[in-house]
Amino acid sequence: MGVEFLKGHGTENDFVVLPDPEGLLDLTVARVRALCDRRRGLGADGVLRVVRPDLGPWFMDYRNADGSIAEMCGNGLRVFARYLVEADLAPLGSFTVGTRAGQRDVVAHEDGSVTLDMGPVRVTGASAAEVGGQVFEGVAVDVGNPHLACVTTTPVAALDLREQPGYDRGVFPEGVNVEFVNVLDEGALRMRVHERGVGETRSCGTGTVAAVASWLHGTGRRTGKATVDVPGGRVSVVVEQDAATLTGPAVLLARGELDRAWWDAL
Amino acid sequence: MGVEFLKGHGTENDFVVLPDPEGLLDLTVARVRALCDRRRGLGADGVLRVVRPDLGPWFMDYRNADGSIAEMCGNGLRVFARYLVEADLAPLGSFTVGTRAGQRDVVAHEDGSVTLDMGPVRVTGASAAEVGGQVFEGVAVDVGNPHLACVTTTPVAALDLREQPGYDRGVFPEGVNVEFVNVLDEGALRMRVHERGVGETRSCGTGTVAAVASWLHGTGRRTGKATVDVPGGRVSVVVEQDAATLTGPAVLLARGELDRAWWDAL
Repeated sequence: MGVEFLKGHGTENDFVVLPDPEGLLDLTVARVRALCDRRRGLGADGVLRVVRPDLGPWFMDYRNADGSIAEMCGNGLRVFARYLVEADLAPLGSFTVGTRAGQRDVVAHEDGSVTLDMGPVRVTGASAAEVGGQVFEGVAVDVGNPHLACVTTTPVAALDLREQPGYDRGVFPEGVNVEFVNVLDEGALRMRVHERGVGETRSCGTGTVAAVASWLHGTGRRTGKATVDVPGGRVSVVVEQDAATLTGPAVLLARGELDRAWWDAL
Repeated sequence: MGVEFLKGHGTENDFVVLPDPEGLLDLTVARVRALCDRRRGLGADGVLRVVRPDLGPWFMDYRNADGSIAEMCGNGLRVFARYLVEADLAPLGSFTVGTRAGQRDVVAHEDGSVTLDMGPVRVTGASAAEVGGQVFEGVAVDVGNPHLACVTTTPVAALDLREQPGYDRGVFPEGVNVEFVNVLDEGALRMRVHERGVGETRSCGTGTVAAVASWLHGTGRRTGKATVDVPGGRVSVVVEQDAATLTGPAVLLARGELDRAWWDAL
């Protein structure tokens, strides 16, 4: 028998899911790297090992593609939650998942999408980003991590985000995720994001929350909701007084087994 | 039931294998693209559909990642041959595979490697390539497609091959694949390759044959053999008077099924 796996993605942030209820897998750094290698392995942004602790809910053991351990990943959590439902390990509707960042409540919907609690979001002040000599006015937004979200009438599709956008290092001493946001209609945004330390990505959950908060702020509101189109798909964000939620797709497109000899040789 | 697939690679040129003996799969351009998409699909350089014709040998229906049809792919042919052996559709040892470029004889070995007939190879004259202002003397080599193979003492690992190397457009009016070759030892070469229209790749079968022919030429020989280390692995090439063979690895690392609803929606 090989090693069971599934392949899935959330707004094109993609993962290999490894069901391991008995905790039998020796998931070394070398195996994570080989699995995530897009030429010699299956290819993914990360691995989600599905672990059943003695006490408490199913635990998401998330690893980055380089083999390092990460605390949380919203796109991964949606894929993880969908796997639990498809495998009859959790019900449709509300349940709790354990992560290294603590327990997270999720809601799995019939259409395969999953709602995540994103915690509180706060607009903390005005700032600006610069791309190719053009200045974009925006606001600093705290979603647990730092964001600079810039609502603009310049079509975001036209921006060259291959380089780090310029920002005020006095305001963001630890670096910042920068979002560029077009308002398509009331409650309908389009966004591209440059993630600190990574570059442009196809989606960023906290970035979509920051985008909606910045749009609400610009229209004089503190709460409201919007869809956000990112390069990897569409999510829906609800911002409330002391909390925000994100609802987005979770796709499981393949399942099977890894060749045992291949796995053992890693 | 989902759609059966395997994932494999030859020197890190990677493929999704779709067994389809009954010819039931409607393999549209959209499905090939989604399968090969490295975020929303399985991810691969191409698809190898396994077809059983009414007459003749198993046929390799090869598609590029963009959905277009290609005649032949040596790395893919090794993976295809290994699949046939693992699925008990062909024996270890010699057999024939059908391709759009005609029937090809292969030899499947017990260690999983496969030997391919590469046809004749001819050194046709001297030329030179240029990278970052440095000129590399080389020879023009015809392996069915055009190559410019440059044996050099400059470590190939140090070259910047992000741009097209300079070459003589009078000698290569249709463009050329350019190889840079270090001699590690008698019969042991290291190579990097820039493929025309593609950029640097992790391996190029005809390029390794050209590399060995250029090394033999430089030492006053027309026949001989060598291993060639490419970024994606190691292959062995034998150059004879009117023929050449390439032996290289073929890895099948995963098998399973694609979600039927995902497939049907494409």
